[in-house]
Amino acid sequence: MAYYAAPLSKLIDQFERLPGIGRKTAQRLAFFILNGTDEQAESFASVLVEAKKSMHYCKICQNLTDGEVCSICESATRDKSVICVVEDPRDVIAFERTRDYSGLYHVLHGVISPMDGIGPDQLKIKELLARVNSGKVEEIIMATNPDVEGEATAMYVSRLLKPLGIKVTRIAYGLPAGGELEYADEVTLLKALEGRSEI
Amino acid sequence: MAYYAAPLSKLIDQFERLPGIGRKTAQRLAFFILNGTDEQAESFASVLVEAKKSMHYCKICQNLTDGEVCSICESATRDKSVICVVEDPRDVIAFERTRDYSGLYHVLHGVISPMDGIGPDQLKIKELLARVNSGKVEEIIMATNPDVEGEATAMYVSRLLKPLGIKVTRIAYGLPAGGELEYADEVTLLKALEGRSEI
Repeated sequence: MAYYAAPLSKLIDQFERLPGIGRKTAQRLAFFILNGTDEQAESFASVLVEAKKSMHYCKICQNLTDGEVCSICESATRDKSVICVVEDPRDVIAFERTRDYSGLYHVLHGVISPMDGIGPDQLKIKELLARVNSGKVEEIIMATNPDVEGEATAMYVSRLLKPLGIKVTRIAYGLPAGGELEYADEVTLLKALEGRSEI
Repeated sequence: MAYYAAPLSKLIDQFERLPGIGRKTAQRLAFFILNGTDEQAESFASVLVEAKKSMHYCKICQNLTDGEVCSICESATRDKSVICVVEDPRDVIAFERTRDYSGLYHVLHGVISPMDGIGPDQLKIKELLARVNSGKVEEIIMATNPDVEGEATAMYVSRLLKPLGIKVTRIAYGLPAGGELEYADEVTLLKALEGRSEI
């Protein structure tokens, strides 16, 4: 039996499609919309369409932008000789938050994952090679996630880059700041030991 | 510093306005929309506006409906002599799920809560009295939540109804099905004892 009228039921379905949103939460969100004003619902709707329409990939670094080139690639103050290669636009934000890195980025939009049917061709690797071939790049920092797929992708890309005579580095493994040794897993500890530096 | 382009940032803000959605989840949902197709974003947007526009209160029971009168009030098979009074449209669904109750409902759209500045006038109590005065009602079941505000609202409404010579009942307190005695609080246990019935 349909408990909800069709328009409400459709709205609940839409919310339920979102990741991490179950039936109960979807109902709660739908009721929140109904309790708001018409203007609020309309502005949500227009922002939704507008964001989807106007956001696309930066033609240089493949990060999300609403212009042709993203603000980082456009910036005159960034160091154009270093490119940090990440999996996802959110990883760019994570690095930007450190307020320390001043080079450029390149977003792969995924990692090589045969289990999910994702091969190198589905990633923005060609675009990275084209940037490197253009000449000004001196170092590529591979900053894919420290998991199996991220590691494999970093290895794959670095093998493509090395013959071009470019310096390829990998972000450090080790203990996270504020973490406790006691709770660190073996691999992390091993990597932290291996990567030790003089003080 | 603005890490995201304006259209994306606005979409994240819209998701963050929703109850129970924090910054991180809002970002995740916004990226999910961007990864979908244009059609998906547009259909989400149209469903959002459509639901808000077409859903309103049933003129009899104040439940949400897209017609003038909701499907329950319209139904010929429901027992029109019993009205179950609930706080919220979601409570109607909860009762409907039991597939046992065949009377009508009345949705108050809230409870008396002086702390939140909600008095009896902001609830759909007048509409309930009007239904009772129309004559056919024999019993009112007060099914507001078993908390302080729900209890106070049930008492308040029942005092208005009693002079009209109507039977007013309150849903039972007791142990929830599948619950464990050990973990029940004192009030629930006391109420379960008081409400015991012969077997």
